[in-house]
Amino acid sequence: MNYPNGIKPKNIPKTSANINYANRGMTLEADLNISNKYYRNEDKAFIYKKPTPIKITKVSYPSRSEAIIKEGFFEKPSTTDYNGLYKGKYIDFEAKETNLSTSFPLNNIHPHQIEHIKNIVIHGGICFLIVRFVKINETYLLKGEDFIDFIHTNKRKSIPLHYFKENAYLIKDGYLPRVDYLKIVDQIYGGVLNDK
Amino acid sequence: MNYPNGIKPKNIPKTSANINYANRGMTLEADLNISNKYYRNEDKAFIYKKPTPIKITKVSYPSRSEAIIKEGFFEKPSTTDYNGLYKGKYIDFEAKETNLSTSFPLNNIHPHQIEHIKNIVIHGGICFLIVRFVKINETYLLKGEDFIDFIHTNKRKSIPLHYFKENAYLIKDGYLPRVDYLKIVDQIYGGVLNDK
Repeated sequence: MNYPNGIKPKNIPKTSANINYANRGMTLEADLNISNKYYRNEDKAFIYKKPTPIKITKVSYPSRSEAIIKEGFFEKPSTTDYNGLYKGKYIDFEAKETNLSTSFPLNNIHPHQIEHIKNIVIHGGICFLIVRFVKINETYLLKGEDFIDFIHTNKRKSIPLHYFKENAYLIKDGYLPRVDYLKIVDQIYGGVLNDK
Repeated sequence: MNYPNGIKPKNIPKTSANINYANRGMTLEADLNISNKYYRNEDKAFIYKKPTPIKITKVSYPSRSEAIIKEGFFEKPSTTDYNGLYKGKYIDFEAKETNLSTSFPLNNIHPHQIEHIKNIVIHGGICFLIVRFVKINETYLLKGEDFIDFIHTNKRKSIPLHYFKENAYLIKDGYLPRVDYLKIVDQIYGGVLNDK
């Protein structure tokens, strides 16, 4: 079969943005990237996803100004994926999807990341998780404080959905922005934000 | 010639950490990474270098759990290289070395980064440049406000060393931490930091 301009679907690099989950067209990551871009365009917040850390082991230099990575490996991030600035405050969060219907497995968050979340909370940053239950299409913001509290008071290996329903904040799907998590940040951290 | 364990110098991947500059053993980046690690260990600040953004174009999967990047390209960062949290405040900076003796060329900082610095300053973050003049071994912290002011009031393509001497803050070399830039941050932004 011939595709326009010789582009074949199998040549499209596999990235998290084009993996298709269940009922949704877009991943949480893609939704958040669009939402963060919207916030920037609106001059509202400057929050970015950090690039994935990669250990580069081979590079070729076909010319003086060009470098091509020939071998590299994905590394585990030691911090969370997103951070930035909103109304004078440091914002930091991790975003995860789960395909499970009734709980969020804690092995989604590495020990280094848990340590990082604790440090940010203690040092006065705003830190949280955004967790999407893909099958029921519900996205929650869970405060870092409540996440740490759960880990300290439970021996469970996953956070049940009902804990989110009772302790976290549902982020409603929107059009612009798709995932308006700063609306929730305004609600729950409003007192510490610099409103002009 | 035979090297121990068959390791030849030419096989060592070329990274910014092992490029050897003039009189110094370590690059500014390596010095800052060590300093930031020291700050974290001392529970003082949580500031990290963002990974270099890489556009991945080929990945192979030799097994279900393993992914090897087979082709990738370095991308220009749209923000600064370092950010994090210190005493409740958002910290953001770019670090650059120059081998010139009398000025710092502005083409070291991309237009997207200049835009980013402006946004961070306007929205109440602490933002600055750390510039090292390698040949004279002097490292300066230049406030984002003063950097933007220079760009707006000059048509020059570089910032002269005397501008740094008059408007920026010399960061003295140390042992632990090597580049104690937070000491300067305390001096010049002390009023907005959360001291406990």
